[in-house]
Amino acid sequence: MSILTEKAPSFVREIAPYRAGKPAAELVRELGLNPETVVKLASNENPLGLGEKAKVAIAQAALDLGRYPDANGFSLKRKLSERHGVAAEQITLGNGSNDILELAAKAFLKAGSNSVFSQYAFAVYPLATQGCGAQAKVVPALNYGHDLDAFLATIDENTRVVFVANPNNPTGTFLTEKQLLAFLEKAPSDVLIVLDEAYNEFLETDQQYDATQWITRFPNLLVSRSFSKAYGLAGLRVGYSVSSSEVADLMNRVRQPFNVNSIALAAAEAALDDAAFLKKTFELNREGRAVLTQGLQALGLEVLPSAGNFVLVKVGTADNAGALVFDALQRRGVIVRPVGNYGLPQWLRISVGLPAENARLLAEMPHALAVLDQA
Amino acid sequence: MSILTEKAPSFVREIAPYRAGKPAAELVRELGLNPETVVKLASNENPLGLGEKAKVAIAQAALDLGRYPDANGFSLKRKLSERHGVAAEQITLGNGSNDILELAAKAFLKAGSNSVFSQYAFAVYPLATQGCGAQAKVVPALNYGHDLDAFLATIDENTRVVFVANPNNPTGTFLTEKQLLAFLEKAPSDVLIVLDEAYNEFLETDQQYDATQWITRFPNLLVSRSFSKAYGLAGLRVGYSVSSSEVADLMNRVRQPFNVNSIALAAAEAALDDAAFLKKTFELNREGRAVLTQGLQALGLEVLPSAGNFVLVKVGTADNAGALVFDALQRRGVIVRPVGNYGLPQWLRISVGLPAENARLLAEMPHALAVLDQA
Repeated sequence: MSILTEKAPSFVREIAPYRAGKPAAELVRELGLNPETVVKLASNENPLGLGEKAKVAIAQAALDLGRYPDANGFSLKRKLSERHGVAAEQITLGNGSNDILELAAKAFLKAGSNSVFSQYAFAVYPLATQGCGAQAKVVPALNYGHDLDAFLATIDENTRVVFVANPNNPTGTFLTEKQLLAFLEKAPSDVLIVLDEAYNEFLETDQQYDATQWITRFPNLLVSRSFSKAYGLAGLRVGYSVSSSEVADLMNRVRQPFNVNSIALAAAEAALDDAAFLKKTFELNREGRAVLTQGLQALGLEVLPSAGNFVLVKVGTADNAGALVFDALQRRGVIVRPVGNYGLPQWLRISVGLPAENARLLAEMPHALAVLDQA
Repeated sequence: MSILTEKAPSFVREIAPYRAGKPAAELVRELGLNPETVVKLASNENPLGLGEKAKVAIAQAALDLGRYPDANGFSLKRKLSERHGVAAEQITLGNGSNDILELAAKAFLKAGSNSVFSQYAFAVYPLATQGCGAQAKVVPALNYGHDLDAFLATIDENTRVVFVANPNNPTGTFLTEKQLLAFLEKAPSDVLIVLDEAYNEFLETDQQYDATQWITRFPNLLVSRSFSKAYGLAGLRVGYSVSSSEVADLMNRVRQPFNVNSIALAAAEAALDDAAFLKKTFELNREGRAVLTQGLQALGLEVLPSAGNFVLVKVGTADNAGALVFDALQRRGVIVRPVGNYGLPQWLRISVGLPAENARLLAEMPHALAVLDQA
């Protein structure tokens, strides 16, 4: 540490640095794999890629990239406000929903305050909290999911933000509309409740609810959504939130004016209109999730019931089981996600892929599991 | 203010909310203008748009947008590190250089510390500072430019970041290599010096210098660059910094992992190789800047000598002169930038456009100036 960096805020210096993996292309080359046959089920992306309407919009937007993006996302916000039946002033656009989570943290947290979230929840919640110099209060999980009663007991007078993920990543666990509403009724009205719904579009019909309609009743509710998952725009980075206009105004004060780029704005707007693509995505995921779940269970593995586009599977009892099986799968050309950094070193998160990709995973898994016997 | 928002940090509540203008297309419609003939010289964009190599890379990258971007920007960083002869670990990529400025602020500022920058400097410096709860110390300008001796006198024991813009936006003023080096020698080594070079590529041959080579000698120096200006990628949002690897490591801790999207990464990498486009941009700007400067001077107006791709012109002595002439120009179909928010209400910032656009501005200006006589 130099004379310069030792004077940086201690809460910044203490953030665990993000260790980016090598790009898949580099990895494939190093392992001597055939790039044509590598299957990537690691990042909960849409295996269909993006829809035709988005592609057309991208080609159109590419013609005018010398100009700055619309700083206010006028057109996309108008469409989202119509979609949700809320005012455009209630919408905040983000460079992915990661940006939304950071803006919510930045607008409400500072040194001395805290945020509350669940064990095994999304890695960005602690990062966004620590980046503001605030404290993270982690609530022990209940059956790998959110224990909302324990959330209520954990919230204190310094809590300014609560992160609730539904479905949760990486566990896939789900909270019902009834559970969420009961929680909102009991949660203090001076605490922002961030309901992270990045995987909302994958919910089964009987699980679906519309939290954006609850904001009138609970002005401390912020609903976060993503275009990176069902809409297939992970590479473009667009997310948004619906909140009270007052909360959106605060987030706007800490937002970078051009946080969402021109191509992302155009593609997201077009993707919203592509109901056929969304339906195809939903059905492909529903079927693939069942195939993966049953196939992994048939291998004698524990799989958590998932409401998302991925499954969490326990591959062994040793503390390095996840890392070993991840590595073995990778050498066989199937890339999944180890979740030791989530405190789940015996588990792997596997994204739902195309039917052939799911079949490949299930075919390689017994071979990969064999490394545990050799370990 | 509600029970919720009144508990947000006071430094967030006190940020002046960003008031986004209407998109140009909406404005044109409202004013009843012909969109075909409207000239936009408002945002220091490249009037050539973007280069062919970037276009090709964009079309290629558009094929794979369902996947997340490379979180570490491996390929673009490698190319930048070769370009500057520095290690890839010294490069930080940003969602525009706005993001770089925010990351530098976030890595070093907190409540109780301060940043130092010049009067009439870029609007993001105070915003990034206030967003961290830190104090902004504004140094009075010297002939509309940076007074580096006054900077040294203003830096105190709580100063953690100094922002120096060269050339400066919106004034176009320029500091020589000699002035910068003299400043760096005297500035405390425990303060980060952010040298914002968004307009670097427009410097005249005899003004050019390479500050990235000074970092070994001054490890507290961070050089910020943008792809939004000369490279013509404003709509895509890419900027970067070169710093010590230790500073880059700190910034990486507060960076959103996927802050630069896939298309932006690909386009920036291709743009770096397009020397012909950069040369054409440089020459077009050099010529157009001279034409605008001389043309405005011929109308009896004061124009600051500019080292950027814009000129700052004093259009009147009344405190609303800038606003009035801006409005009159807009009604005549020429959009420029009023700079009252920079404390320059008698001035307008005019971006250098294509030859025909510059001629149009000069032809409309006398008519627009006439509103001052009527006021």
